[in-house]
Amino acid sequence: MKDRFVLTLSCPDRLGIVARVAGFLADCEAFIVESQQFSDPDAARFFMRVEFESGGPLFDAAQLTQKFVGIANEFSMRWELYNLNSRPRLLIAVSRQGHCLNDLLHRWRIGALAVDIPAVFSNHDDMRSLTEWHGIPYIHVPQSEGKPAQEQRMRALIDEHQIDLVILARYMQILSPEFCGELAGKCMNIHHSFLPSFKGAGPYKQAHRRGVKLIGATAHFVTTDLDEGPIIEQAVERVDHAHSIQRLTEIGRDSEAIALARAVAWWTERRILLSGDRTVIFR
Amino acid sequence: MKDRFVLTLSCPDRLGIVARVAGFLADCEAFIVESQQFSDPDAARFFMRVEFESGGPLFDAAQLTQKFVGIANEFSMRWELYNLNSRPRLLIAVSRQGHCLNDLLHRWRIGALAVDIPAVFSNHDDMRSLTEWHGIPYIHVPQSEGKPAQEQRMRALIDEHQIDLVILARYMQILSPEFCGELAGKCMNIHHSFLPSFKGAGPYKQAHRRGVKLIGATAHFVTTDLDEGPIIEQAVERVDHAHSIQRLTEIGRDSEAIALARAVAWWTERRILLSGDRTVIFR
Amino acid sequence: MKDRFVLTLSCPDRLGIVARVAGFLADCEAFIVESQQFSDPDAARFFMRVEFESGGPLFDAAQLTQKFVGIANEFSMRWELYNLNSRPRLLIAVSRQGHCLNDLLHRWRIGALAVDIPAVFSNHDDMRSLTEWHGIPYIHVPQSEGKPAQEQRMRALIDEHQIDLVILARYMQILSPEFCGELAGKCMNIHHSFLPSFKGAGPYKQAHRRGVKLIGATAHFVTTDLDEGPIIEQAVERVDHAHSIQRLTEIGRDSEAIALARAVAWWTERRILLSGDRTVIFR
Amino acid sequence: MKDRFVLTLSCPDRLGIVARVAGFLADCEAFIVESQQFSDPDAARFFMRVEFESGGPLFDAAQLTQKFVGIANEFSMRWELYNLNSRPRLLIAVSRQGHCLNDLLHRWRIGALAVDIPAVFSNHDDMRSLTEWHGIPYIHVPQSEGKPAQEQRMRALIDEHQIDLVILARYMQILSPEFCGELAGKCMNIHHSFLPSFKGAGPYKQAHRRGVKLIGATAHFVTTDLDEGPIIEQAVERVDHAHSIQRLTEIGRDSEAIALARAVAWWTERRILLSGDRTVIFR
Repeated sequence: MKDRFVLTLSCPDRLGIVARVAGFLADCEAFIVESQQFSDPDAARFFMRVEFESGGPLFDAAQLTQKFVGIANEFSMRWELYNLNSRPRLLIAVSRQGHCLNDLLHRWRIGALAVDIPAVFSNHDDMRSLTEWHGIPYIHVPQSEGKPAQEQRMRALIDEHQIDLVILARYMQILSPEFCGELAGKCMNIHHSFLPSFKGAGPYKQAHRRGVKLIGATAHFVTTDLDEGPIIEQAVERVDHAHSIQRLTEIGRDSEAIALARAVAWWTERRILLSGDRTVIFR
Repeated sequence: MKDRFVLTLSCPDRLGIVARVAGFLADCEAFIVESQQFSDPDAARFFMRVEFESGGPLFDAAQLTQKFVGIANEFSMRWELYNLNSRPRLLIAVSRQGHCLNDLLHRWRIGALAVDIPAVFSNHDDMRSLTEWHGIPYIHVPQSEGKPAQEQRMRALIDEHQIDLVILARYMQILSPEFCGELAGKCMNIHHSFLPSFKGAGPYKQAHRRGVKLIGATAHFVTTDLDEGPIIEQAVERVDHAHSIQRLTEIGRDSEAIALARAVAWWTERRILLSGDRTVIFR
Repeated sequence: MKDRFVLTLSCPDRLGIVARVAGFLADCEAFIVESQQFSDPDAARFFMRVEFESGGPLFDAAQLTQKFVGIANEFSMRWELYNLNSRPRLLIAVSRQGHCLNDLLHRWRIGALAVDIPAVFSNHDDMRSLTEWHGIPYIHVPQSEGKPAQEQRMRALIDEHQIDLVILARYMQILSPEFCGELAGKCMNIHHSFLPSFKGAGPYKQAHRRGVKLIGATAHFVTTDLDEGPIIEQAVERVDHAHSIQRLTEIGRDSEAIALARAVAWWTERRILLSGDRTVIFR
Repeated sequence: MKDRFVLTLSCPDRLGIVARVAGFLADCEAFIVESQQFSDPDAARFFMRVEFESGGPLFDAAQLTQKFVGIANEFSMRWELYNLNSRPRLLIAVSRQGHCLNDLLHRWRIGALAVDIPAVFSNHDDMRSLTEWHGIPYIHVPQSEGKPAQEQRMRALIDEHQIDLVILARYMQILSPEFCGELAGKCMNIHHSFLPSFKGAGPYKQAHRRGVKLIGATAHFVTTDLDEGPIIEQAVERVDHAHSIQRLTEIGRDSEAIALARAVAWWTERRILLSGDRTVIFR
């Protein structure tokens, strides 16, 4: 099987970017499978994702990188090159509710999520059995040991397993500002509301009190500003006056699992680029 | 054709309410076409809507009312009886954008909205031609005359035409607190965001800046608290990073028109009951 | 905790049904929690679901039944009375794909589905580990033993465990007409298309060829007429030209799991009534 | 204001297409605003849409065309170049229901649809007033004059006004095979069902009988095969057992208007390419 690569880049917008990138790929005999681009007129910035197959057996990421660096410098690009056959490594953090974890692990098990999951971290022991049945180590640092100990352990796991993305799959803890800073751009959270509505605690309770007719969930990158990070995906579900907070919570679980699963899949396929506080999603 | 009535009521919840109401209707030989109820466990309050056909030629709203008042008092009900064959009277207020107005007038014209519209009010002259083509008087009080003059004229129209509901169909003015108070429960607004997100001015601009993946519209009752009134209906549409504020505005127009049209239709059929700051919608 | 009951009924439509039923419940000191009704004008038939709490310690299903039978006969009702605290018993049948099974078992595990699942049946062994991890016996009758042997074993399981509902959760076998007949009204299937589009085999392949812009899933009761049984719930998801059959299949899995989960939950709460080839769903 | 162009093309897939096209545009000093491409692995065919701004005052469609023809021939492209500032010309055909017409005309009136509409054609006189209020000639050829006379008149209008697209906006006539053939790829219909469900007459009646839980509308290109042409857009709306055929029809009107409006807007912006019986939509 041929290797498949993704090149993502962003740079100040100007004439001829596509021509140079596409020309480079043609010279490398790379066959373009999919390509998207976006010119942000506000930021005067250009974004591109191109997925391609390698042209021959001697073709690898190191060679491509070496060849591309000149173009990248010329256009002042922020860029990355991924081999789609190399599996990114995820650390999933969870608390007592397992619907997002169960959903992600099932997708992983059936091959719908092409990642490695070296560990699941939690502040509770509830999800040990599910996780271990999937053959994944479960690391439990109880609340009693405190946030610094928990984050220290997560840091160690991230280092040990060379984690590419941390997923807060209903991990009901606020990370410390330092840890948020360290994880910038590589930590994703699912918030159980349609942001920016109902930030913070008890969003379904807030939604019930306000009497909204749709509830939602938001997958977003974590920043030090709680529930204010770049939004990746949102899902909504219709509700009505007869739904109790308990029922809203049940209905919302499906939106949470689906919004998070989509966000993780897009991330895995390198479809998410950051543009300041916003995301560019090349679906 | 037989008359068709709607009885709506709410009262403290207790045993036997349905039995008494249904018994009363059976005694009147009223044939129940549709009935819904809701027990709000938080408020310990019961809500009911029942739609029925009259039992005979001597049967009218006055007689029904007279007979029902005893039960209503016994259960401390807030209640209303409507003859669905009598058309409620709407005053529509609009500014320069006509998509909601055009949508409502078309529905009215083809008989999908069984109401009378004695007048359209505006602070601009832009929608005169559309309104008058539909045979409806257009009342224009320009911005230069000031808000008190505008509201005074609206009050006069409400009195003169015995208006049942005022619809702010993208009327880009904030009503004075006094006027809001006078209109409590009989004035509906369409806000061009998915409330409680993006209250106030420029919601599409706010949505663009925040980078949300869904935008929405909210039909709600007007209260003195801006964009905080009871929510009647919400609609959303998927958007992405490539959509400019202008494009969000265009996409949002459809959500606005549809959310408002549904809210008005439900109101016309007396499907909306108020429960504090929330609505009970018997669809 | 008080017992909670559901009474469902349908009968020829006429004056006074609600009054009699509600009067009966009031006499029993039953507190109505939720009630819906529907008059089908085409069939001139009345449908009702009423959920209520018992009035006292001596109050049970047997007594209620005995008391209600007179009214039921008078109105020629088809009716059933359920104690919501008694858990219905489900047999789930599955083949090689486990996304619907995994979804149902997780809901069951976290208490979102108040049922008992005495066994999972399959024509393949793939889902044994998942099922047994949940502590549920897994019965495997391979394809080589033939359909009669498989159905004989399912019949035995249904008898042994007093199964109330059989769920075909992507069980990729067509049941024999006899077995369909025996299971009438107590067997639910999830079909991976938006019926009546793309009946039969390979619906995602058909959808891809036709170039539809939305794909869907349909939960329906099984009848002898393949994919023609009464529809319970449908879900759709947007797709586009770039989606391969494989990608449609992946996207569709979420719709399948959600449509089936809703259908099962409604059935569990006795919200589904049959009206000829259609369903009445009192949500 | 600079001219803005769209180049659409499709050709057998091979190495270097994007490089050549982008290189060509860079040589022309064309600034790419938006670009999408799609490699259809089944057809081994490549599709591309690129939107760009001209590089200078001497730059026009004729020059671009002349320069591009060499590349186009080299890659065996089917291609078209449009100046987005030139407005395409639409003929709208309608019968007695005006919701789609009203919707399109309003969008056109407020500038959301950048087209010219030289005439509206109908087999009934009902929509004359609405059309003429918008300042558009209304051509009425009654049913009594027969289909050949109607189509002859439409042909004459198409010639006279150099019509680019015919829109059947609930034109309740089946066009003759000859006329369908003549209009291949330039005639769009809105069918009031979620195709391929419920082809032909009375789709809402069919939907009601089948008891579906979602109804839909489909905008598609017209071919000689009734309701089998390439699908452009589909919209759905949730319904339930309580909705009569009349109510389904009312609910469906919104889906029809929105699906058609989106399809027309995409066509106007040259976002729709044909790939056999399917469409490629570059949104």
